[in-house]
Amino acid sequence: MCAVSYFSSRIKFIKKLMTSCCLDAVMFSDMNNIRYLTGFTGSEATLMVGLKDCVLLVDGRYTLQAAYEAQHVSVFEYENKFAGIRQALKKLGARKTGFEAVVMSVAMHQNLLREVEKTEFIPLTDELKFLRAKKDKYEISSMKKAAAIASGALAVIVDEIRPGWTEIETALRLEREARRRGAEQIAFETIVASGKNSALPHARPSGRKIEKGDFVVIDFGVKYQGYCSDETCTLAFGELTAAQKNAYRATLRAHDEAIAYIREGVTAASVDRLVREMLGKKYSCRFVHSTGHGVGLEVHEAPRLALQSPDILSAGMVVTVEPGVYYPGKWGIRIEDTILVKKNGCEILTKLDKKLTVIK
Amino acid sequence: MCAVSYFSSRIKFIKKLMTSCCLDAVMFSDMNNIRYLTGFTGSEATLMVGLKDCVLLVDGRYTLQAAYEAQHVSVFEYENKFAGIRQALKKLGARKTGFEAVVMSVAMHQNLLREVEKTEFIPLTDELKFLRAKKDKYEISSMKKAAAIASGALAVIVDEIRPGWTEIETALRLEREARRRGAEQIAFETIVASGKNSALPHARPSGRKIEKGDFVVIDFGVKYQGYCSDETCTLAFGELTAAQKNAYRATLRAHDEAIAYIREGVTAASVDRLVREMLGKKYSCRFVHSTGHGVGLEVHEAPRLALQSPDILSAGMVVTVEPGVYYPGKWGIRIEDTILVKKNGCEILTKLDKKLTVIK
Repeated sequence: MCAVSYFSSRIKFIKKLMTSCCLDAVMFSDMNNIRYLTGFTGSEATLMVGLKDCVLLVDGRYTLQAAYEAQHVSVFEYENKFAGIRQALKKLGARKTGFEAVVMSVAMHQNLLREVEKTEFIPLTDELKFLRAKKDKYEISSMKKAAAIASGALAVIVDEIRPGWTEIETALRLEREARRRGAEQIAFETIVASGKNSALPHARPSGRKIEKGDFVVIDFGVKYQGYCSDETCTLAFGELTAAQKNAYRATLRAHDEAIAYIREGVTAASVDRLVREMLGKKYSCRFVHSTGHGVGLEVHEAPRLALQSPDILSAGMVVTVEPGVYYPGKWGIRIEDTILVKKNGCEILTKLDKKLTVIK
Repeated sequence: MCAVSYFSSRIKFIKKLMTSCCLDAVMFSDMNNIRYLTGFTGSEATLMVGLKDCVLLVDGRYTLQAAYEAQHVSVFEYENKFAGIRQALKKLGARKTGFEAVVMSVAMHQNLLREVEKTEFIPLTDELKFLRAKKDKYEISSMKKAAAIASGALAVIVDEIRPGWTEIETALRLEREARRRGAEQIAFETIVASGKNSALPHARPSGRKIEKGDFVVIDFGVKYQGYCSDETCTLAFGELTAAQKNAYRATLRAHDEAIAYIREGVTAASVDRLVREMLGKKYSCRFVHSTGHGVGLEVHEAPRLALQSPDILSAGMVVTVEPGVYYPGKWGIRIEDTILVKKNGCEILTKLDKKLTVIK
C-alpha cells in the first residue's frame, strides 16, 4: 500500500475547510500535521496550503530531504523565515490565512503580525482538532504493525522476567527486543514501575529490584512509520493479597466493559463514566487519571476519553482504554489497550492477553 | 553533589526578574523550564512563581511524583486547569503575571484571558531567553557524563564498523552501547548517513549498506540526568578522492579554528562568520546550516550560533560547533563537538578525536 495517494485527500480536507471558513490559505507549523499532510518528516518547516498550490518552507538543512519526501507541494528554501512566509502568501494570493492556534506561540503570533502585513491571520482551534483523529487504511496498517511489534516484545519479556530484575534492566531488555522486531524508536519513555513505584502512574524506571509480592506496571509503546502504539500490562510476582486480587479483577472488568461498549457514536465522556461506574465507589476514587486518549503520529492526540470531554467517537479513531487503581505508598495497577473504533464495535490492536499473570 | 541547593538560586533569578519587570508572579508551562526550576520531571504541569511562594499545579497522574521530586514548591492537584490557575494566582496575590510567550499557544492565551480575569498577563520573551543558557556546576557535571557516555559508545562503534553494515544496524549498535554505558535515553534521533545520504544534514538511518568510497556521517547524543550531549563524526571508508580529502581538511580546520576562537564575550555571529571564512568561497556555499546551538535539557536551546544571531557567548554556556560541507547527490561531511564556554577559552566536552579516520 502506498502512502502517496492519501496525501491529496488529506489536503482536500484542508481546502474544504478553507472554503467553509472563507480562507485563502492555512499555515501549518506542527511537524506531525505537516508529516500527515505532505509526508515530510523533518524537524522544522512551515506549510502553506492554498486553494490551488501548497508551499513547504524549509531552511537549508532540509531542502534536499523535503524535495525527496514531500508530496504535491513546492519546496521553498528560506534564509529569513518571515521573508519566506511573505513570499509564500504572495504566491498563494492569501489575504485571509488560518493558523493552528493551539500550536503557534504568542511570541510567533506577535512577530507574524509585525512582519507580515498584507494578510489577516485567523486562529483555528476546533476546526483542526480532529484533523488526524480518524485514521485511514495506510495509517491503520502502520498502527497495527507498531502494536504487533510492541506486544511481541512485551510477550517475550513477560516470559523471561523474574524477581531480582531491576526496573531499568527490564525496560532496556524490552526496548532492545522491540528494536530487534523492527521498531523505529520507542513512542514514549518506557514505564516499568514495581512495588510502591507502581502507585505512580508515570513513574520512571529505577534501579529497584522486583520482589515477590510486587505488582509491576509496564507501559510501553513503539513507533513504526511514525505511528505510535500504547499498551500497559500489570504483572503479579508471587502470591498476591486478596485486596490486590480484587483490585486487579475490578480494573480488568472496567477495561473489558469499556472496550465492549465502544463503537461509533458513543461519547468519550460516557466511556470514562462507564469505567468509573465499573470500578465502583471503592476503586473509582483511586483512579486518578482519565480513561484514555487518541493515538497516532503523537502518542497523545484527539480525542480525549475523560469525564469533561465533549468528543464523540467515530469509526477510524484509534484510542487507548486504560483504567488504573493506585494506592500511594503501596501498589498500583493499570491495564491498557489501544483500540480501533468501528461502526458496530471496536478492534483491539495491542495483543497481550490482560488476564492476571502471576510470575513465580 | 546534590541538585537541591541549585533550585533556590534558580528561583531567585525569576524573583529578581519579577521585581525588575514589576510582576507579582511568573507562570511556566515549558516542562524543561519547570524541571530546571523545581526538579519535577513529569510531562505536564504549570508552575507559578510568586515573590514569596511557588505553586506547582499538576493533575492526578502526578500528585505523588511532584510531592517526591519538586523542591521549594506547594503542589496543588487540579481537576480543571483554569480553576487551578485562578486558585494559585489568588494565593500568590498576583495582579500582574508574566508568562513564557515563546511557549504559550495563542489558543491557551485566549482561554486564559477568558477564564482568569483578576490578573493581567504580560508576555515575556527576551527576559527568559537565556534562563537556562549558563550552566551551573550540577548541570555541567551531568553534561560531561552525557558526553562521556556518547563519545565512549561512538569510539566502540568506530572500532567495530565495517563496510557492509547498514545505517540502521549501525545506529542500533551505537544506541545499545550507549544504554549499556548508562545513557537514560538518546537525545535525538540518531543520524547515520552513508554515501549520498551523507549530503542530507538530517538524514534518517536507512537500510543502505555502507560501501567503500563512502563518507558516513554519525550524529549522536544521549541524555543523562535529563541533560543532552551532541556530537558528530564523519568516517571515511576505503580510499577517498582528493576532493573528499580536501573538503574534510577544510571542515576540520573551520571546526578547530572556531573552537580556538570561542571564549566569554565573543558574539555568536562572529563564530559563524569565522567558520564561513575558514571554509572559504569553495565550501561556504556548501555549508547549508548554521554553526551551532546551545545544548542542555533540550538538545537545541539558546544561544544560536548563526550569522543573524544577536547572542553573545558567556562563561557557562554549552554550545555545539558543527561546520559541514554537503554535495547533494554525492556526499557530505559534518564535524561537531559540544563545548563549554569559559572566561579565557573553552573546554571540549565530547571526546572523540576528529582527525580523519579511514576504515578499510
